[in-house]
Amino acid sequence: MSANLGNNLDPWLSAYAERAHTLSVSEVRALFAVVSRPEVVSLAGGMPYVAALPKDLLEKSYLSMMEKKGLLAIQYGGGQGDLTLRDQVRELMALEGIRSSVEDIVMTTGSQHGLELLSGLFIDEGDVVLAEGPSYVGALGIFRHYQAHVEHVYTDHDGMSPEALEESIDRLKEAGRTIKFLYLVPNFANPSGVTLAKERRPKILEICKRHHILVLEDNPYGLLYFDKPVPDALRSLDEEGVIYLGSFSKILAPGFRVGYVLAPPAIKDKLILAQESAILCPSAFSQMMISEYLANSDWQAQIDTFRGVYRERKDAALGAMHEFLPKLETTKPDGGFYLWVTLPDGVDSKAMLPLAVKELVAYTPGTAFYGDGTGHNKLRICYSYPTPERIRLGIQRLANVINLQTDLLDTFGKKGAAN
Amino acid sequence: MSANLGNNLDPWLSAYAERAHTLSVSEVRALFAVVSRPEVVSLAGGMPYVAALPKDLLEKSYLSMMEKKGLLAIQYGGGQGDLTLRDQVRELMALEGIRSSVEDIVMTTGSQHGLELLSGLFIDEGDVVLAEGPSYVGALGIFRHYQAHVEHVYTDHDGMSPEALEESIDRLKEAGRTIKFLYLVPNFANPSGVTLAKERRPKILEICKRHHILVLEDNPYGLLYFDKPVPDALRSLDEEGVIYLGSFSKILAPGFRVGYVLAPPAIKDKLILAQESAILCPSAFSQMMISEYLANSDWQAQIDTFRGVYRERKDAALGAMHEFLPKLETTKPDGGFYLWVTLPDGVDSKAMLPLAVKELVAYTPGTAFYGDGTGHNKLRICYSYPTPERIRLGIQRLANVINLQTDLLDTFGKKGAAN
Repeated sequence: MSANLGNNLDPWLSAYAERAHTLSVSEVRALFAVVSRPEVVSLAGGMPYVAALPKDLLEKSYLSMMEKKGLLAIQYGGGQGDLTLRDQVRELMALEGIRSSVEDIVMTTGSQHGLELLSGLFIDEGDVVLAEGPSYVGALGIFRHYQAHVEHVYTDHDGMSPEALEESIDRLKEAGRTIKFLYLVPNFANPSGVTLAKERRPKILEICKRHHILVLEDNPYGLLYFDKPVPDALRSLDEEGVIYLGSFSKILAPGFRVGYVLAPPAIKDKLILAQESAILCPSAFSQMMISEYLANSDWQAQIDTFRGVYRERKDAALGAMHEFLPKLETTKPDGGFYLWVTLPDGVDSKAMLPLAVKELVAYTPGTAFYGDGTGHNKLRICYSYPTPERIRLGIQRLANVINLQTDLLDTFGKKGAAN
Repeated sequence: MSANLGNNLDPWLSAYAERAHTLSVSEVRALFAVVSRPEVVSLAGGMPYVAALPKDLLEKSYLSMMEKKGLLAIQYGGGQGDLTLRDQVRELMALEGIRSSVEDIVMTTGSQHGLELLSGLFIDEGDVVLAEGPSYVGALGIFRHYQAHVEHVYTDHDGMSPEALEESIDRLKEAGRTIKFLYLVPNFANPSGVTLAKERRPKILEICKRHHILVLEDNPYGLLYFDKPVPDALRSLDEEGVIYLGSFSKILAPGFRVGYVLAPPAIKDKLILAQESAILCPSAFSQMMISEYLANSDWQAQIDTFRGVYRERKDAALGAMHEFLPKLETTKPDGGFYLWVTLPDGVDSKAMLPLAVKELVAYTPGTAFYGDGTGHNKLRICYSYPTPERIRLGIQRLANVINLQTDLLDTFGKKGAAN
């Protein structure tokens, strides 16, 4: 009877859960094949430049780990993560003003999985998540998977606007919506590159506290500032209302998949249980490698090296933008990996992407960073991975593509450009 | 207004999603603290004996990986997992009769995460999952988290009964329930230690096919047989209706958190998307370590070593059961890690556990392996980790505790025993 459900392409089509239909191939993922062709300058990625790490440094960590930890490094570990590493994470977070206990830290499989597990703990179908506009594509994917409605709050060069936040909350409450949390990347945000201004931080927290809205502070880039340190973390100002997510992917290497969450005690307890259910425990091997790296190397000097690399690349990117696309508005980040570019009226970054790839340059279209279908006239440039020379070449090629689009628009009107 | 929701213990109590309330501390987890005390003989664990691995073997893998793969080992990888390793997994699965393509294999963070992601793809609240009775505690936790109803199908010394399966399906369909899949561990099951008989395999598959029910075959122990290889995998008999889950946790080491899923193409595509949403990509570092291990070592000889270790420990466990608890019924596994013991009438394994720990022995109570509250008069003995001498000592202590319980029952009737 039910044996004929499904179709030729997928005999199990009728069996999927409702949430399975929220999954779709993202703009970013569709670019993976492109990125790997060497002739294409990829400004799409988001990959850290791990070549800036000395190779023998990891070998030292490996040998020291096996010597000290032995079989513990390859055995099951606890669901909360390695205690020694959690203590080191505590010190790392102290650099941004955070006071914490090892008891409240949970190691995760990249901060992505921390966000995934937290979203599972809080989001019921139809709940609202507040986010910056634009916001991190990987977070939007998770929120969509849990069938949340993402409400983008107006964000300018100083980060999220407290007034706009208050206004959004009032409007949503009036409409009877349940707001579960505010998600934001306060430092060198992905994709905008902007940093939440110091004076806005207590205001954002005060508004959320007053409305009993939890804050998820995602901070993978905070230590990668170019000139001066970022303002203290939101978590340093509010221990009860902020969950903090951090990662080793950008200050060391993403291949270990190690991130961490600092949460209020009751939430932390639930997070550990959710983690045990999902993966039993995070990798002891990866965690202990990082723990040894932190114990035996001058990791702060290594972060300085990364900062220098990314500062030089940011300068190359902004220089090339000034040289080849002087009329376009772009953010000017004080750290991190990204420029956020506003295209001329009528130019659609998603429609333009195939033309750009034909010109051997790739970027991420702005629509990837909105849950509401907007962002067509924006694009993200990631300058972290290519060399300065390649960045300049890529932006030169991008300029050719954009200028052709604007020429078409000038000649034939808006319908002439790719869309 | 809503600012006063919550309580003193957890100010965010009102904010959790419905599924968060499905999380509870499991019997197994509560034992972790006990396990770590050296004076306690833990027959609870489930940990592989990784000390049987030569230490320098992993060092060779590490050095060879860094030499060959270099920075790729610490960079983001693809969402489906490392291609070289997937090809090696293909060869590994061929040992159990499975023909597959690298295209249909997805590497996961342990097979636990494979099961978690698949459950997310298929289970809507209230759906039914069919499982052996008893079934793997970690799977039951996931199914509970997705708010499934677990229906245990009668299982004897030859594994799940096809007749009972048919009868369960008929009854559930009559009641209008939606059955999403059958989950089973066909070889040396956790916790029962039993293996699904060869002649039952096509019958189980035929029944599921006729009712359009997907089969999830979880096979972490299949290669750890004592004397003769297990029957060919269910997946070898049905490519379209079976999803196969495998793991390196038991044949190499769990600290890497590397498992894999072989799925029909359309499901595999969705699984990759779900994985990218949850963790971006599995750890390149862990995957490449294992890939080098498989490429450069006699891993089949290493599995033989593990087989010898576990066979000796199984013999020690069964010998001690025969010596100290000759009247108790226990399964006699042909491989894997576990004995499943039936206690005398009226003895409750959960209530008895604190008394056992006081006598310096730990086990896992039977209730952990049922989703329906049954299993009180069963317990699981895991013999994989302690030495044969410690296993004997542990079972001797266990006998003292059980005998005291039966003495109490004989003297005072059923209400006298701990419960």
